[in-house]
Amino acid sequence: MEKIEKTIEWVKDTSGYGFSRMIDQTKIPYEFKKIDIKSSKNMYDAIKTMIVRGAPAIGIAGAHGVVLGAIESKDKNNFFEEVENISKFINSSRPTAVNLHWAIEEQLKVLRQNKNQDPKKIIELLIKNAIRLEDEDIETNLKIGEYGAEIIPKGATILTHCNAGALATVGYGTALGVIRSAFKKDKTIKVFADETRPRQQGARLTTYELIRDGIDTTLITDGMSAYFMKKGMIDVVVVGADRIALNGDSANKIGTYMVALAAKYHNIPFYIAAPKSTIDSKIKTGDEIKIELRSEEEVKIINDKLVCDNKVKTINPSFDVTPNELITGIITQFGIFKPNEIYKLFE
Amino acid sequence: MEKIEKTIEWVKDTSGYGFSRMIDQTKIPYEFKKIDIKSSKNMYDAIKTMIVRGAPAIGIAGAHGVVLGAIESKDKNNFFEEVENISKFINSSRPTAVNLHWAIEEQLKVLRQNKNQDPKKIIELLIKNAIRLEDEDIETNLKIGEYGAEIIPKGATILTHCNAGALATVGYGTALGVIRSAFKKDKTIKVFADETRPRQQGARLTTYELIRDGIDTTLITDGMSAYFMKKGMIDVVVVGADRIALNGDSANKIGTYMVALAAKYHNIPFYIAAPKSTIDSKIKTGDEIKIELRSEEEVKIINDKLVCDNKVKTINPSFDVTPNELITGIITQFGIFKPNEIYKLFE
Repeated sequence: MEKIEKTIEWVKDTSGYGFSRMIDQTKIPYEFKKIDIKSSKNMYDAIKTMIVRGAPAIGIAGAHGVVLGAIESKDKNNFFEEVENISKFINSSRPTAVNLHWAIEEQLKVLRQNKNQDPKKIIELLIKNAIRLEDEDIETNLKIGEYGAEIIPKGATILTHCNAGALATVGYGTALGVIRSAFKKDKTIKVFADETRPRQQGARLTTYELIRDGIDTTLITDGMSAYFMKKGMIDVVVVGADRIALNGDSANKIGTYMVALAAKYHNIPFYIAAPKSTIDSKIKTGDEIKIELRSEEEVKIINDKLVCDNKVKTINPSFDVTPNELITGIITQFGIFKPNEIYKLFE
Repeated sequence: MEKIEKTIEWVKDTSGYGFSRMIDQTKIPYEFKKIDIKSSKNMYDAIKTMIVRGAPAIGIAGAHGVVLGAIESKDKNNFFEEVENISKFINSSRPTAVNLHWAIEEQLKVLRQNKNQDPKKIIELLIKNAIRLEDEDIETNLKIGEYGAEIIPKGATILTHCNAGALATVGYGTALGVIRSAFKKDKTIKVFADETRPRQQGARLTTYELIRDGIDTTLITDGMSAYFMKKGMIDVVVVGADRIALNGDSANKIGTYMVALAAKYHNIPFYIAAPKSTIDSKIKTGDEIKIELRSEEEVKIINDKLVCDNKVKTINPSFDVTPNELITGIITQFGIFKPNEIYKLFE
C-alpha cells in the first residue's frame, strides 16, 4: 500500500524554481500515480478535471498556479499584470470552493507587496509562501482533528460524505482528520462512507484512505444513510465544506444536504470540519454561494460506460448548501463553533 | 424504439400449457431482449437476479412460477404437496415485496379449491388465473393512473425514485402510470428521475420508458433531489411501493425515505402509487417489514467494473420504510387514501 504523504506539493528542481507535484485523484483506486504540473494552463486543467480536488487542496493548487504563472511571465515587461491575469484565469477553474480564491489572494498579496522587487526574487517569495500554505494546511488539519475528536463518542460510527481526507487537503484531512484523530484515541470507531455520486469520491477516495489507515469502513450508496440512522447504526455525521457563509450555511458536495436532513430527523449531530479559509467573510448567507454545474457525462458515464439511455438529459450541480439550522457545529482550527457564531472568527 | 407492451406474460405453446416470457431488465438500456422461463427453478433465479423486478411484476412472475411448478409435478403422486413446496421455494426468492406472496396465494387458492380435479385440469385453471392476474394488473394501473393524475398540477415537475413503471408491472406502471395519465392531459409535465443506486433502475429503466413516451425527463443522482426541491424545481413526488403496512408505512426501494424527508422539509407532496395487493393486511406498522439485504457486489461493481477499493466492505439493504407521517397520500385503484386510512380497504 502506498503511504499518502502529501497530496500536492511544490518540488524544487535544477532550474532554481520547480513545479507542482500532485496525486492524480482521477486514477484512484485503480492506480496510484503522481503527476507534475509545470504550466499555469495545465494547472487550470488539473483543477477543472479534478486531478486535484477538495477545497483545501485546490487552494494549494491555485497558489502553485500563481507561481507557475510568475515563472512563465518572468521575462515579460508587464510581469505584474500577467501574473494577475493568470491568477484570474486559474481562479475561474472552479467557482464554489472559496479556498481557491483565498490561496490565490494570499499569493497576490506577496506579489503586490513586492512591486519593487525583480521577478526572480518575487518568484522565490511566491514559492516560499506556497510552501508556507502547504505546511499550514497540515497543521490546521491536525488542530481540526484534535478539536473534532472531542465530539466523537467512544465506539461511535461516523458517517461521512464525499472525501474530506488527506486527498482533499495537503495531508491528514478535515472530516477525515477528525476521524483519524478520534481513531488515535479509540480503535473501536467505525466509518460509513457515502459513495457520493456522480464522481464517487466516497467510494474511490475515502474508502481508499481509511482502509490504509486500518479504520473499519463500510461503503454505502447515497440513498442509504437515513436507513442506517433509523436503525441506530450512525452516531454522528462529519463532512467537509467548500464554502461557508457568515451565518454558517455551508456548501459541500452534492448530497450533503440530504444527509443533514436525515440527521436532523433522527436527532443525530451533524458537523462540518473546515479551516477558517473555507469561510467566506464576504457573504452573509448560503444563498450567495455560486454552485458549479458540471458536465452531463459525470452523471451518465461511469468508468467509460453509459449507465442510462444516451438520449436522456441531466443536470449536474456539484454542490449543495446545508442551512445553518441543520448544522450542530463547525469544527475549525480555532475550536468548534455553532454555525450562527462562526462570524466571530472575523471579529 | 421498442414498444413496451407486456413486461411479463404467459405464452401458450403446442404442449397445451406454455411458459413465461419476460423482458430481461438486467440488459436495459443496453439491449432489449425477452427471455422465456420454462421451469420453476429458472423462475426463482429470474426473480432473485432481477431479470424481472418491481413488486407487481414479480407477483405475476410468482403466479407463473406456480404454473411451471404444477407442469413439472403433473405426473407425481404427491402433485398437490409438490406444487405447495415449489410455491414456497419461489416465494423465498425475494422477501420484501408482498405482491409475490399475494399472487402465489391467489394461485394456491385455485389449487386448494380444486383438489378433486386432475393435475391437467388444475394447470389449465392456474394458467387462466395467471392471465386474469396479468389483465387485472394493467387495469389496476390504469385506474391508479386516473386517480393519480388528479394530484399532478398543470405543468408540474414530478420526481420519482427507482422504477415503478411498465417494467415494474405487466404494463403501464404505478408511479409512472400516474405520470403517463397526467401526460395524456398535459404535455407540459416534466419528470426528474433519481438514478437509484445500487442497481440504477431509475437511470436504466425509468428514463428508458419515459423517453420512449416522449415525456421530458431529467436524470439526477440520488443525492440531488433536495437541491432541486430547495430551488423550487420539483412540485410533487410519486413513487411505488413494495409493501405497505396497515398504518400506511411504506417500504420502497432504498433511498425513498431520504426523498420523503427532503419533500417534507420543503413542503412538497409525497405520494405512493400502488395496487391494493401491495398492502399487507397482516402487519400494523412498517417495523414488521423484512428488508432484503442483497450482495456487496451490487454496491461495489457497476457494469462489471469495481468502483471502489476491492477490500472495502458494504451493506446493501434493498429497501427502506417511509413512515406514514411523511406520506401525503397513497394512490390505489380504489382512490387516494391518507396513509392512516389505508386500512379501510380491508374493512
